[in-house]
Amino acid sequence: MNSEGADKPSTADERPHEVLDWLALDIGGTLAKVACVEEKVPVDRVKEAGLSVSRDERSLKTSSGDSLAFFLFSSREGQLSSAMAFLKILVLEYYPLGTLPRPTIRATGGGAVKFASVIRKQLDADIVKVDEMDSLVSGLSLLLNTDGSLFQYNIKHKRRQVIDTSAMQGVEGRGFFPFLLCNIGSGVSILKVEGPGKYKRVSGTSVGGGTVLGLGSLMFDAESFEEIIELSRWGDARRADLSVGDLMGTQPGPEHGMWSDDTLASSMGKLFVTDCPKADAAEEDGPAGNFCAGFSGYRAGEARQSRPAREDLAQSLIQMVSYNIGYISYLV
Amino acid sequence: MNSEGADKPSTADERPHEVLDWLALDIGGTLAKVACVEEKVPVDRVKEAGLSVSRDERSLKTSSGDSLAFFLFSSREGQLSSAMAFLKILVLEYYPLGTLPRPTIRATGGGAVKFASVIRKQLDADIVKVDEMDSLVSGLSLLLNTDGSLFQYNIKHKRRQVIDTSAMQGVEGRGFFPFLLCNIGSGVSILKVEGPGKYKRVSGTSVGGGTVLGLGSLMFDAESFEEIIELSRWGDARRADLSVGDLMGTQPGPEHGMWSDDTLASSMGKLFVTDCPKADAAEEDGPAGNFCAGFSGYRAGEARQSRPAREDLAQSLIQMVSYNIGYISYLV
Repeated sequence: MNSEGADKPSTADERPHEVLDWLALDIGGTLAKVACVEEKVPVDRVKEAGLSVSRDERSLKTSSGDSLAFFLFSSREGQLSSAMAFLKILVLEYYPLGTLPRPTIRATGGGAVKFASVIRKQLDADIVKVDEMDSLVSGLSLLLNTDGSLFQYNIKHKRRQVIDTSAMQGVEGRGFFPFLLCNIGSGVSILKVEGPGKYKRVSGTSVGGGTVLGLGSLMFDAESFEEIIELSRWGDARRADLSVGDLMGTQPGPEHGMWSDDTLASSMGKLFVTDCPKADAAEEDGPAGNFCAGFSGYRAGEARQSRPAREDLAQSLIQMVSYNIGYISYLV
Repeated sequence: MNSEGADKPSTADERPHEVLDWLALDIGGTLAKVACVEEKVPVDRVKEAGLSVSRDERSLKTSSGDSLAFFLFSSREGQLSSAMAFLKILVLEYYPLGTLPRPTIRATGGGAVKFASVIRKQLDADIVKVDEMDSLVSGLSLLLNTDGSLFQYNIKHKRRQVIDTSAMQGVEGRGFFPFLLCNIGSGVSILKVEGPGKYKRVSGTSVGGGTVLGLGSLMFDAESFEEIIELSRWGDARRADLSVGDLMGTQPGPEHGMWSDDTLASSMGKLFVTDCPKADAAEEDGPAGNFCAGFSGYRAGEARQSRPAREDLAQSLIQMVSYNIGYISYLV
């Protein structure tokens, strides 16, 4: 614990305060993330409160050797109530109400602005908003010291390959700059990082994690991001997507040009299926029957096919959003 | 009607043939489009057959003064049956089976390859695949001669503004090149056109018209592209999308930085809503209750909100796909 004058809390509270170095928040548009040094968590009190919190199975070792644990909460609640219940136990354990100094918590994300007054009211704690992009780049250094956190995807063998980072000496090491940092939250920010502390936001897209969760929720009643990822592992996106082969047929020929049959042509392009009983009843080579009238007449003659499975939709959704982010990053 | 040796049909049929200059096809992944000189359509025969075809309300004047009409059919049927019924009436009117010369029809799109043998079998007509990108650029010249077909969107007044093309003397005229041609079909191709016949495909995305139709069909049972467009006119995408204001709160302050409150942060980001009855029953400031366990625990404490209306989803969907296409075009 240290008291740093450089961190300015968002109000002019002149009581003695301490900026916590064992607890920090990131409150995004979908999730509130609490990062906390593991040994600081009063496990018994959390259990006493009947609080079943969601903890990420991964943890990180900090430069001082502490183990950093990550807890996830919804940030959609008006009062951030489940995250607040957890924070109360954590913060009041070390800073009981009515005592001095008061705690100041570092936070990133839009919610650090939106929920500052709620946190002040309920914990008598101040929020100091730290620069999210600075934090991201610092966090990368920590990740580099964690085995298996850096990998490339081998497209030929369709699997992850871990990159050995031991020779890199952290993000400040040789050969790491410049790089693109693609931060996928509810939305997506793409940063060009040219050196330590030297970066700018160069691009972004609103088609991000919030889109995956939102569409997954509406399309196949997904209840979490993890569920969508797990479903997608067992699906076949080709049941939802149109490929070049679907458009051209799969007979080989010069017409295919630069495209292979399995090139993705239209994400979710197979989901549009309609029915039209009268036309369905007509024989294929017989009189064409009374097709649906009007501008939607092209729906005629097509039977409603069976929908792709949840797994297929999940894979198509993940691919649509991740390919798009990858492509925008490539174009920047 | 003319007989052009330069057009080579896809088979080595040595019988006399005529390449039609009054009828052409574009068979894409979702729709088959038939372009036909209006006076050639045997309207009575189409009516006799009980064929209710879907005709685009717009038509174009060709350079020879003919009026060109456009008809739409589904291309999803295995045998293209409704389009074939219409083509049979059109083609056999002028080229009865068993007579010579046989007709050769110009066509673009993947379906020109996929369905060539079906058309040959049913109409005894050959398909000659013409270059789609050439056709697109030629089509632009025609569009420039059509009042109101060229417009820009005035973002301040939120409406179309027609561009006067009378001084442009067609696409070959001064000041038109270079331009980006963004061809939105089931998928999207983006061409850089540097001069007459001088272009290359520079980009594209699988998130296109097929995605709009597919997601619209699955999310709110849309039955046509036109229905989605019409719905979107009456919706409010903000009920489905997360804005910067949703993430940060709408109090003014320096924290917002470069973003305005209504900047789109996450397309469809508001659709992820979950419920958890036990947590809902807990009081806001009371004991936190038995939250949902496990990794999806962050769903706790949030009531299932009412879903956005079909109109809202339609507007969000159209914006997601069109903004993305616009942005990729901008980045190219």
